[in-house]
Amino acid sequence: MSNKVLIIGGVAGGASAAARLRRVDEDAEIIMFERGEYISFANCGLPYYIGNVIDDRSKLLLQTPEAFNARFNVDVRVQNEVTAINVTDKTVTVKNHVKGETYEESYDKLVISTGSSPLRPPIPGIDAKNIFTIWNIPDTDGIKNYIESHQVKKAAVIGGGFIGVEMAENLHELGIEVSIIEMANQVMAPVDFDMAQYLHKHIESKDVDLVLEDGVKEFISDGKKTTVVTNTGKHIEADLIILSIGVRPNSQLAKDAGLKLNDRGGIVVDDSLLTSDPHIYAVGDVIEVEDYINKVPTMVPLAGPANKQGRMVANNIVGAKEKYNGTQGTSVAKVFDLTVANTGANEKTLNRLGKVYGKDYLTIQIHPNNHAGYYPGPQQMHFKLIFEIPSGKVLGAQIVGGEGSDKRVDVVAASIRFGATVYDLKELELAYAPPFSSGKDPVNMAGFTACNILDGDQEIIRSEDLDSLDPEKNLILDVRTSVEKTLGYIPGSINIPIDELRDRISELDKNKTIIVSCAVGVRAWIAVRILTQKGFKAKNLTGGFTAYSALYY
Amino acid sequence: MSNKVLIIGGVAGGASAAARLRRVDEDAEIIMFERGEYISFANCGLPYYIGNVIDDRSKLLLQTPEAFNARFNVDVRVQNEVTAINVTDKTVTVKNHVKGETYEESYDKLVISTGSSPLRPPIPGIDAKNIFTIWNIPDTDGIKNYIESHQVKKAAVIGGGFIGVEMAENLHELGIEVSIIEMANQVMAPVDFDMAQYLHKHIESKDVDLVLEDGVKEFISDGKKTTVVTNTGKHIEADLIILSIGVRPNSQLAKDAGLKLNDRGGIVVDDSLLTSDPHIYAVGDVIEVEDYINKVPTMVPLAGPANKQGRMVANNIVGAKEKYNGTQGTSVAKVFDLTVANTGANEKTLNRLGKVYGKDYLTIQIHPNNHAGYYPGPQQMHFKLIFEIPSGKVLGAQIVGGEGSDKRVDVVAASIRFGATVYDLKELELAYAPPFSSGKDPVNMAGFTACNILDGDQEIIRSEDLDSLDPEKNLILDVRTSVEKTLGYIPGSINIPIDELRDRISELDKNKTIIVSCAVGVRAWIAVRILTQKGFKAKNLTGGFTAYSALYY
Ligand SMILES: Cc1cc2nc3c(=O)[nH]c(=O)nc-3n(C[C@H](O)[C@H](O)[C@H](O)COP(=O)(O)OP(=O)(O)OC[C@H]3O[C@@H](n4cnc5c(N)ncnc54)[C@H](O)[C@@H]3O)c2cc1C
Ligand SMILES: Cc1cc2nc3c(=O)[nH]c(=O)nc-3n(C[C@H](O)[C@H](O)[C@H](O)COP(=O)(O)OP(=O)(O)OC[C@H]3O[C@@H](n4cnc5c(N)ncnc54)[C@H](O)[C@@H]3O)c2cc1C
Ligand SMILES: CC(C)(COP(=O)(O)OP(=O)(O)OC[C@H]1O[C@@H](n2cnc3c(N)ncnc32)[C@H](O)[C@@H]1OP(=O)(O)O)[C@@H](O)C(=O)NCCC(=O)NCCS
Ligand SMILES: CC(C)(COP(=O)(O)OP(=O)(O)OC[C@H]1O[C@@H](n2cnc3c(N)ncnc32)[C@H](O)[C@@H]1OP(=O)(O)O)[C@@H](O)C(=O)NCCC(=O)NCCS
Repeated sequence: MSNKVLIIGGVAGGASAAARLRRVDEDAEIIMFERGEYISFANCGLPYYIGNVIDDRSKLLLQTPEAFNARFNVDVRVQNEVTAINVTDKTVTVKNHVKGETYEESYDKLVISTGSSPLRPPIPGIDAKNIFTIWNIPDTDGIKNYIESHQVKKAAVIGGGFIGVEMAENLHELGIEVSIIEMANQVMAPVDFDMAQYLHKHIESKDVDLVLEDGVKEFISDGKKTTVVTNTGKHIEADLIILSIGVRPNSQLAKDAGLKLNDRGGIVVDDSLLTSDPHIYAVGDVIEVEDYINKVPTMVPLAGPANKQGRMVANNIVGAKEKYNGTQGTSVAKVFDLTVANTGANEKTLNRLGKVYGKDYLTIQIHPNNHAGYYPGPQQMHFKLIFEIPSGKVLGAQIVGGEGSDKRVDVVAASIRFGATVYDLKELELAYAPPFSSGKDPVNMAGFTACNILDGDQEIIRSEDLDSLDPEKNLILDVRTSVEKTLGYIPGSINIPIDELRDRISELDKNKTIIVSCAVGVRAWIAVRILTQKGFKAKNLTGGFTAYSALYY
Repeated sequence: MSNKVLIIGGVAGGASAAARLRRVDEDAEIIMFERGEYISFANCGLPYYIGNVIDDRSKLLLQTPEAFNARFNVDVRVQNEVTAINVTDKTVTVKNHVKGETYEESYDKLVISTGSSPLRPPIPGIDAKNIFTIWNIPDTDGIKNYIESHQVKKAAVIGGGFIGVEMAENLHELGIEVSIIEMANQVMAPVDFDMAQYLHKHIESKDVDLVLEDGVKEFISDGKKTTVVTNTGKHIEADLIILSIGVRPNSQLAKDAGLKLNDRGGIVVDDSLLTSDPHIYAVGDVIEVEDYINKVPTMVPLAGPANKQGRMVANNIVGAKEKYNGTQGTSVAKVFDLTVANTGANEKTLNRLGKVYGKDYLTIQIHPNNHAGYYPGPQQMHFKLIFEIPSGKVLGAQIVGGEGSDKRVDVVAASIRFGATVYDLKELELAYAPPFSSGKDPVNMAGFTACNILDGDQEIIRSEDLDSLDPEKNLILDVRTSVEKTLGYIPGSINIPIDELRDRISELDKNKTIIVSCAVGVRAWIAVRILTQKGFKAKNLTGGFTAYSALYY
């Protein structure tokens, strides 16, 4: 059977599909079209090349057209843009930008991996020559050249997603003063606000100016500098501006061809990654996927899914019946000295889908060390676990911390894939030696803490819910030592150190609910157990003063 | 209901049980007996304290008897040794070593967490004062004092288990010349020989003298130095000798009380961790557990299981019905600059149980980087995956590498807990950004590689099987570049770089099986696909020249 496969897009999804397809079908005719000059480049490395963390530009190019052809016998056509898909003829129209010619190419199967492009909305002044987006090699060269040939002392990054934050970090690395301007009340949308607060504090500690809940109204340029005027009227002057406020799928081609799209422009595919046309597959940033947790359609523009979808499509083209089971949105980013990682659903998504805290799901925050505290250099992580009630099914995890944060998120990510409950998490047998973990790993700890709630052994309350408490009916009990209290405390709390609680329990009012707080929640948990078993109504402030002070920092 | 619980042993399992029991039962009477002077100490940190990596002795003491009592209202009795369990009376006999008195204490429930002790076999000369075992704080103080008060220039560590290797590393850290003497053909028994070879090479690169397949015949001391005389007649002179050749469970008490033991002296418990006596539970190093993979009895003296069993027993004492589902043997150790980690079954165990490579299970070796190669400081890991055939069920994983090795083992460890197959591994959605991983994580890669075999797309062969190949029927084809070949190659192999293979395929003999080898197996996989689809019989040398050269280094 003849098998001529055309692939549109030569980077993550496209190149992966081409390489895999060659391995599973030595005889297929494979043509890969890429409108840009480069294929197989490391999109994800671009910010680090700007910051000179990656010093060698050639490292960004994982493959060249020639090498890819030599290795995979794939006809790689760079600077060849597919301008139309003609579904009835099963051909594509291609514009060769080098020769200036247009031609047609027929296919048996077509793979669309056109990715997404950064948004560049029609904000007044957006065409100033020092306003860049960062998406590919030419963008990156442009930014790098601009920095090298201009006196860039001050930069503004519009958008606090992972690319914006990575850019801020890398510009800062170059000694450039940086502002981040973000419309939402937080950076790093995949995590919730309570977790983002740890990042905000850290970013500010690096002398990066963080402007939240404010958007760009206009850019005013004087030819050298550009002033960002925000909706609230702030004026932020910068020599360089990076725009990274989101992406839109490159699906115009698909739309014009009559393929089914969702309302965000994402190509709709079935679970074999086939579009509404039986000869056309699509993968990567351009498609809609199923949210693995909530089973609703979503778009997750990340490299892991794109690469794996590319591989899967190749298999399906040669007759496999592989199913794509949805995307969890597992992701990670380095934010200066911290790591932020997450998997599964966050609260914002759950709430948008109508799920209610306390009714449908619960969250805990714990703050374990990445490894044994007695071994040098333990790093505390802030670990939020979201689980369904009453089933205990793990819905998501978010961690902000140092080394080992990515590890715990990956362990939860794997567990989620198997439908884990918090009861499963406490049983996981993870590797322990002092430099790597503790006898009870943070993931186990999260499991224990969650099970203690599900089993009815403790009730918890979140920092954000403290404000609405009636002081007549509630009492905040701080069970830290008095020395710790001098470092900060929750207004209105009374202090009885945990080790004195049994003796001083009579000082407490049995008619009030006792909200117990300590540094992270461990001593408060012990206190809650003492109190409830002695007839008090008590709740543990989840995450303790660490969570509280981060939330209100 | 009165609840008087006695706990024998005040460290990992015992102290965990006591702390948890107090939380679940504020009114229980809890007495914890510890024959030594210390409770809750960090056994696992002891080698690092010797090496001054942990500089503060007090950090090793996670709890003191006083603090533990203040926090948990547990009657902690150090230097109180339980000398008998009287099951009919439900009492224990206790020797108070401070007062020199003996007394009895009654119980409703008893928890045995007496741990294990290092073996000290009756080798001639073993009582020399410079021969130490390392198990607790006094041992550690003894070694540290000896080093400080004697001119220790040369040490010999007998036994290459994780404690022996950690001790070797820490003594080396102090500038002491070290020999490791190990009876088996490898260090670190939890991994197989092929993986241990990476460690051997690394240990020797640190100028540690590694003596394998040799045991100690006798020790000859001159009052200052001791000479280790080995079975093969080697004489190794040392100022200090650390004996770490294994442990035996501290089960004499249980044996005398008539509790059921296995033939290695391990206390037999049911899945609620109850011994053969309905009032006595046992946890930790002293018990027999079920091997999670093979469902056979085994003993796994590790802190993770001990801590979790201690917690579980406390729950069961107050009426929970928690089941202990077995131990996978997940473990990790730092070996100088490398990490060695493993989970599940190794080949040695499988073979002992009669499982045969190629019939019951297969193994692959891959060598991915811990993170994107273009981001600074990628570290290659050596990753062995063991899986059942034809089901693909993951049986075990072993990794020797740098940073991130523990992460991948933990991800596989979690997956194993859910009965994962290699098909599941390829789907796991793990966190990717350049500093942390690749779009296809090493765990995914292991999944892909294994599935390629199960799906019939490639056959593999192991380095150790090359010797037995008939050169008349087989040909070793090296598809690396000729430059790579100058760094070493498999004797008898012919070289056709992968990118020339399609053009030069006619040079190959179709009557022979082509064993394809490259650096790690990736290019060989591509070659295997080309060859088999062109009518050749081909096999991939798993792990490539990296595995081969490590095996025969
Ligand atoms: C700066 C940056 C950092 C990132 N960091 C991370 C990270 O840390 N982790 C992570 O998971 N993801 C990261 N990503 C996202 C990741 O790179 C994308 O999710 C992934 O590349 C998507 O793969 P894709 O194949 O869908 O699209 P792409 O890899 O973008 O490839 C699409 C290609 O198609 C070409 N194309 C489009 N239309 C046509 C046409 N009509 N004809 C011919 N060619 C066409 C485009 O030129 C483009 O090269 C990052 C992205 C960027 C830009
Ligand atoms: C040097 C070293 C390094 C280690 N490193 C690691 C590691 O990196 N990772 C890992 O997972 N594991 C490690 N371990 C193993 C881990 O420490 C043990 O598996 C764990 O401590 C076992 O817990 P347990 O409660 O069974 O026994 P233990 O923690 O040993 O406690 C048993 C206690 O019982 C007391 N006892 C015994 N008999 C009596 C009696 N009759 N009356 C009163 N008291 C009694 C003993 O004195 C002892 O203190 C290490 C161990 C050592 C020694
Ligand atoms: C590099 C690129 C061309 C992919 O090519 P690829 O050949 O599929 O590369 P991979 O490393 O994923 O594949 C390795 C192959 O070797 C196999 N393999 C890996 N180690 C092996 C080993 N030791 N033995 C045998 N096979 C092995 C894998 O199974 C895989 O083959 P398969 O997919 O057929 O199962 C494509 O991913 C790309 O262009 N990437 C750059 C762009 C990008 O991803 N950007 C976003 C992130 S920055
Ligand atoms: C320290 C030791 C006494 C254990 O005491 P412990 O109080 O059970 O300590 P842990 O840290 O395990 O327990 C923390 C508790 O707080 C809970 N917790 C943790 N973070 C929490 C948070 N943020 N909010 C609420 N609860 C939290 C956990 O669920 C756990 O309670 P649980 O077991 O009742 O569910 C015991 O492990 C010990 O002696 N260790 C030293 C010896 C040893 O382990 N050696 C081998 C390794 S070196």
